[in-house]
Amino acid sequence: MKSKFSMGIDFGSNSARALIVDVNSGQEIGCGASEYAGGDKGVYTDKANSHLARQCPDAYLKSLSTAVKEAVAKASEKKGFSAENINGIGIDTTGSTPIPVNNRMEPLAGLREFRDNLNAKAWMWKDHTSMEEAEKITALASKIRPRYLKKCGGVYSSEWFFSKIWHCLNVDKKVFNAAYSWVEFCDFIPAVLCGIKDPLKIRRGICAAGHKAMYSREWKGLPDAGFLGKLDRRMAELLPRLYKETYTADTVAGKLSAEWAEKLGFREGIPVAVGSFDAHLGAVGAGVGKGELVKIIGTSSCDITVSPDNVKVPDIPGVCGIVDGSVMPGYYGIEAGQSAVGDILNWFVSGLCRSSHSAFSQLTEEASKMRPGESGLLGLDWNNGNRCVLVDPKLTGMLLGMTLHSSQSEIYRALIEATAFGAKKITDRLEEYGIHTKEIICCGGIAEKNQLFMQIYADVLNKKMKVSASAQTCALGSAIFGAVVAGDFKNVETAQKKFCSFKKKVYIPIKKNNAVYNKLYALYSELHDSFGTQNKKTGHYGIMKKLLEISAEAKAGK
Amino acid sequence: MKSKFSMGIDFGSNSARALIVDVNSGQEIGCGASEYAGGDKGVYTDKANSHLARQCPDAYLKSLSTAVKEAVAKASEKKGFSAENINGIGIDTTGSTPIPVNNRMEPLAGLREFRDNLNAKAWMWKDHTSMEEAEKITALASKIRPRYLKKCGGVYSSEWFFSKIWHCLNVDKKVFNAAYSWVEFCDFIPAVLCGIKDPLKIRRGICAAGHKAMYSREWKGLPDAGFLGKLDRRMAELLPRLYKETYTADTVAGKLSAEWAEKLGFREGIPVAVGSFDAHLGAVGAGVGKGELVKIIGTSSCDITVSPDNVKVPDIPGVCGIVDGSVMPGYYGIEAGQSAVGDILNWFVSGLCRSSHSAFSQLTEEASKMRPGESGLLGLDWNNGNRCVLVDPKLTGMLLGMTLHSSQSEIYRALIEATAFGAKKITDRLEEYGIHTKEIICCGGIAEKNQLFMQIYADVLNKKMKVSASAQTCALGSAIFGAVVAGDFKNVETAQKKFCSFKKKVYIPIKKNNAVYNKLYALYSELHDSFGTQNKKTGHYGIMKKLLEISAEAKAGK
Repeated sequence: MKSKFSMGIDFGSNSARALIVDVNSGQEIGCGASEYAGGDKGVYTDKANSHLARQCPDAYLKSLSTAVKEAVAKASEKKGFSAENINGIGIDTTGSTPIPVNNRMEPLAGLREFRDNLNAKAWMWKDHTSMEEAEKITALASKIRPRYLKKCGGVYSSEWFFSKIWHCLNVDKKVFNAAYSWVEFCDFIPAVLCGIKDPLKIRRGICAAGHKAMYSREWKGLPDAGFLGKLDRRMAELLPRLYKETYTADTVAGKLSAEWAEKLGFREGIPVAVGSFDAHLGAVGAGVGKGELVKIIGTSSCDITVSPDNVKVPDIPGVCGIVDGSVMPGYYGIEAGQSAVGDILNWFVSGLCRSSHSAFSQLTEEASKMRPGESGLLGLDWNNGNRCVLVDPKLTGMLLGMTLHSSQSEIYRALIEATAFGAKKITDRLEEYGIHTKEIICCGGIAEKNQLFMQIYADVLNKKMKVSASAQTCALGSAIFGAVVAGDFKNVETAQKKFCSFKKKVYIPIKKNNAVYNKLYALYSELHDSFGTQNKKTGHYGIMKKLLEISAEAKAGK
Repeated sequence: MKSKFSMGIDFGSNSARALIVDVNSGQEIGCGASEYAGGDKGVYTDKANSHLARQCPDAYLKSLSTAVKEAVAKASEKKGFSAENINGIGIDTTGSTPIPVNNRMEPLAGLREFRDNLNAKAWMWKDHTSMEEAEKITALASKIRPRYLKKCGGVYSSEWFFSKIWHCLNVDKKVFNAAYSWVEFCDFIPAVLCGIKDPLKIRRGICAAGHKAMYSREWKGLPDAGFLGKLDRRMAELLPRLYKETYTADTVAGKLSAEWAEKLGFREGIPVAVGSFDAHLGAVGAGVGKGELVKIIGTSSCDITVSPDNVKVPDIPGVCGIVDGSVMPGYYGIEAGQSAVGDILNWFVSGLCRSSHSAFSQLTEEASKMRPGESGLLGLDWNNGNRCVLVDPKLTGMLLGMTLHSSQSEIYRALIEATAFGAKKITDRLEEYGIHTKEIICCGGIAEKNQLFMQIYADVLNKKMKVSASAQTCALGSAIFGAVVAGDFKNVETAQKKFCSFKKKVYIPIKKNNAVYNKLYALYSELHDSFGTQNKKTGHYGIMKKLLEISAEAKAGK
């Protein structure tokens, strides 16, 4: 059997990671990583504006080279590997991270005149300078194009494509005028690797377009000029210099250029796949599929599943985004998530109780000895608002049932349970709209390390919980698309069967525990609806809002 | 001016305290204290039954002698003092603490045959062995004598007189049969000092009778034989060996016997006042009066006020007890309180955050820098149930408004505020029924040390808060009655004017803070009514109950 390999490259918030997978065995045989140069771990900030977060496109490319070379060096230790046999490259990045470029596809950040201008750099996903623009876009769309919002959970975010570009227009006309086009990070990397010198010739990914730029087949592309023109005439004028078509990640974005083939030591002309977002390809690398929901659990959670696109998926209220082809071709990609998971536990253990990180294992051990329901505690997991299904940042946390004996480990367990109930709200909502979750595949440190957490989720959600065997599912997902565009697999599903595997330990729901959790979930739901929804006349929707209002007034010294 | 003095003796849970006051100046001139001998700090417990708590009547008397002698020794250092010039003695004790005695007024505990029998000792106020009997008494009274419950907050407690006596009958017939009568601790001490040898000749106090034994002028005495007979025939048979008349504490219980006059070095025949409960005389010593509410703040709070008895006070739902003459003659004594105050702060700081006691001052300092409402947090102070005005032990604590940044000191402050809102529920309820509180006098360590706590209470309650200058208001209250029965004052109010004083620092409500707290109190009230009352169809009354139910089932391993 001829040896063949795929290269997946994952661009995270602070570093690039390159992974080489043996296509015949599905084994990961070499990995490299490189932190972005400049700024604070690659992030440029502004002391005068805490919302600003920018990055240097050139640093991305330097880290790409370093990480790839390290991966190749590692793989070269394995018998039978040769960089010549890498047949395809897949790419994922953070996003929405738009980069202003000139008409030769040169990032403005690299031009001498913009050298020290933060607005000319890549506008990192977590840049929140565009809050006002986002609010205005949401308001305008609600009024004249409500359908634009339905695909993205009802609110257009300051983290997204048009908010950022419009903000640039409002604060730095020089950069805005010099930008021939704006290219998402995940579209920029394939274009560079393939030597594409015209922004209008880039094959842009459906993933970034559909989730962050209000792009949809339903209205045949991006928001129309009439809409953008109502923001600013110059936004409408930009439209023809963006894109009309978008592509799924199994499409070839282009062929590896001679220049980059030499730099990386690969064959010239191997296909590079259209780029996607990291979480989406992470889901593919973890094994997402019909009935399989991937939960990437970190400080917050990102939940991704797919549904075959031969059956139309309705708009699902409170679910962040539903985009045809955004995760895998032939499927609607469905993205949901919780605004705080690990963050709530970190807040409690490190922030509130001021314990060291080592306290986590002690608390987990103590909490593992308790029976579900024993503590009499119940919480709402809204310390950072609620992303799904209430889509309301102005919600706050809650805990009830405390006595004079409630202990740290009891509250720790109750907070885990609260996030599990929040997770069940999402799977329940998907279910209501016909998206059935058979089992859940988890990634992230908590899933790998915290067995109590995983068993509680299995018991609350009443679903089998698996953990991805790969520690780098994003790069693995990219490698899957690299192999698919190389023609080494007929489709993504076949590649997944070869590439994706799971840890031995599978968490099976325990009937008795699930029965108790069903009772607690009913109480959680009562509080959830009372404090979180306006529909119920009899509830306490106003309380958290009023507390935030009183707090804001107190802080302002009124 | 002839020098004259009064002696107040306060029997607490673990020790007796004697205080000599100069009647002319109102100054405290000598104090002594003595811990009860035997058991654990005077308390006998049973490893097999954690609810049991008994004490030795003989140990009370030994401590009395020791404490009085110490007080006399201290006072003797002052110019012009002579024990010969002590003109009267007042007494307060814990309660309900019934003591079984024979027909010669000898405590059974002192008889050889009962030497090691815990049931023959004094049944300390915090003994909870009689829970079943208490529930049955409540059930029977609800059915056939509902008026009996109206004076004591709707529930007859396991801590009270008849529950304990009936439990003795149920578990130890030998002791029950040997007991000619049962005498409250506060009636026992004056009887002993006066050499009264017949239990039927003791002048029993209205305070213990009215608050703990369902005694009322409305039904002309104790519960009737028909009622007690429904508990047990022998309970009805005991009735004639208890008492028919009761007296206020300004009544002479008797004259000091030659035996005790010699023991203590006092004049024979000086008057001894009828005894009362410690908290009640503490209120008198602190300066209770019309419009003055005394708050004794410790782990829990005991709130006492009075209302002139020429105007009938209606039954006030949710207020623990209203007894004519129980605090001061000529007034209804009104007792309320919160089940946890200091205990909630202790739970949070020491229990949950595992901080040392020194953390309190640090947290207080940090919390003092915050503005009311700034934290966005709101709590319900029900970690130990709610004593007033909901009278429901099956309520639990609650906190809401938490973010990922909520700090220890913010929560600490929110918990203080929650107890202040709970305190306002009580003054509001009294107000509704015509009992107006003009200002509040506080006693206890928190009131003396925690200025933040006091200012928050002033701001929430919108009332002036004072702190008693005496560190032993109970003994001082007793000394007031000692001086009144001696004829050194025409009444209690005149004695109070001389004896009671306040710390310089007075806490005045800050208008701006009160305005914010009024907004927060409206939200507190919304939650209070929703989670705490059954009347509101739209609320969440069931949630805390169900959590306790689920917890009990889990603990039982169901």
